[in-house]
Amino acid sequence: MGIVPKLIRFFYVVHLVLLLIGVHGSVHGRLLSIPPKPDPADAAATARWLVSQNIWGVLNTISSDLGGAPFGNVLSFSDGLPNEGSGIPYFYLTPLDPTARNAMKDQRASFAVSEYSLGTCGKKDPENPSCAKMTLTGKLKLLDTSSKEAEVARSALFSKHPEMEWWPPSHGFQAYKLEIENIFLIDWFGGARPLTVEQYLKYKM
Amino acid sequence: MGIVPKLIRFFYVVHLVLLLIGVHGSVHGRLLSIPPKPDPADAAATARWLVSQNIWGVLNTISSDLGGAPFGNVLSFSDGLPNEGSGIPYFYLTPLDPTARNAMKDQRASFAVSEYSLGTCGKKDPENPSCAKMTLTGKLKLLDTSSKEAEVARSALFSKHPEMEWWPPSHGFQAYKLEIENIFLIDWFGGARPLTVEQYLKYKM
Repeated sequence: MGIVPKLIRFFYVVHLVLLLIGVHGSVHGRLLSIPPKPDPADAAATARWLVSQNIWGVLNTISSDLGGAPFGNVLSFSDGLPNEGSGIPYFYLTPLDPTARNAMKDQRASFAVSEYSLGTCGKKDPENPSCAKMTLTGKLKLLDTSSKEAEVARSALFSKHPEMEWWPPSHGFQAYKLEIENIFLIDWFGGARPLTVEQYLKYKM
Repeated sequence: MGIVPKLIRFFYVVHLVLLLIGVHGSVHGRLLSIPPKPDPADAAATARWLVSQNIWGVLNTISSDLGGAPFGNVLSFSDGLPNEGSGIPYFYLTPLDPTARNAMKDQRASFAVSEYSLGTCGKKDPENPSCAKMTLTGKLKLLDTSSKEAEVARSALFSKHPEMEWWPPSHGFQAYKLEIENIFLIDWFGGARPLTVEQYLKYKM
């Protein structure tokens, strides 16, 4: 057996192993491997894992254009460098988009993320309670551009979303954060899992 | 060269071709292939494709528990049999979950879906305008259980979410629909694409 078929066989096996451990299934446009999901009984670990591993979610505000309707917007976010996040979701928003305009009039907001988008739920339905999902509710706040936190937010965002650094300056993108007041986490059967904001934020990754 | 290495090489090539055309990248727990994305200039086709191909999104209501905050919830949905959808998102909700309780007090709602979750955005950022996203705003309405439409809704839901048929009867799941009043679609650069509810609903898949 020559060297070429041997090499082909070797790469095929490596490839299958990567598929089996879910690396291919969880990339979706980014070459990151997902660290193992925490034990669902550890609510803080699961919640922080969901926010650290996801790169997008739906940010909801009260629509001033649509008579106060709850307006959900698919947006990219980051809570920090991969696996070093703070748990605070940061966004990069332009007043050309309804979400930033809504927040100027009413800061009430929520942000929803799903384990399903990480590709780790296997064949389970996205609404199966063991496929984790979370909604963080609070206030969407514009960060002072020259503040330390705005700098942290921009590093967090640009590390996970390199495109953002090149978005048109004329659009006036600015860093925002969700100041969390309430956590709704489903990661197993039996309803929402109790988790305080303090427990969530003080958890060390 | 024996038959075994030949077979291995054959399957490896098939495998790579599948990877290249994105079949692996777009399954995420369901063995469906995604039909090609319509031309972004065709707003109705793109919008209906997003709703027909996605199996989950974030449904937003006004939270009665959280002082009127906009509450987004990750939920499974269906607009019909695969590739035969009506464009109307149906949900299967229990009053044990905040979303159904919120809708009983205030029907205003929106539903957000993303192309990113289909795996067809490649290496683009989830917020890149050419990675389509859409928010349907309207009223979340409980369907009369014995009505024709509730039957349609249940068939639509159970065809894409086989688990639902086995959810605990004691939880009181019922079919709801989003009655669409406004469409916010981003599928290219240059801001939201004009699309009326009539254009959206009358489009034939």
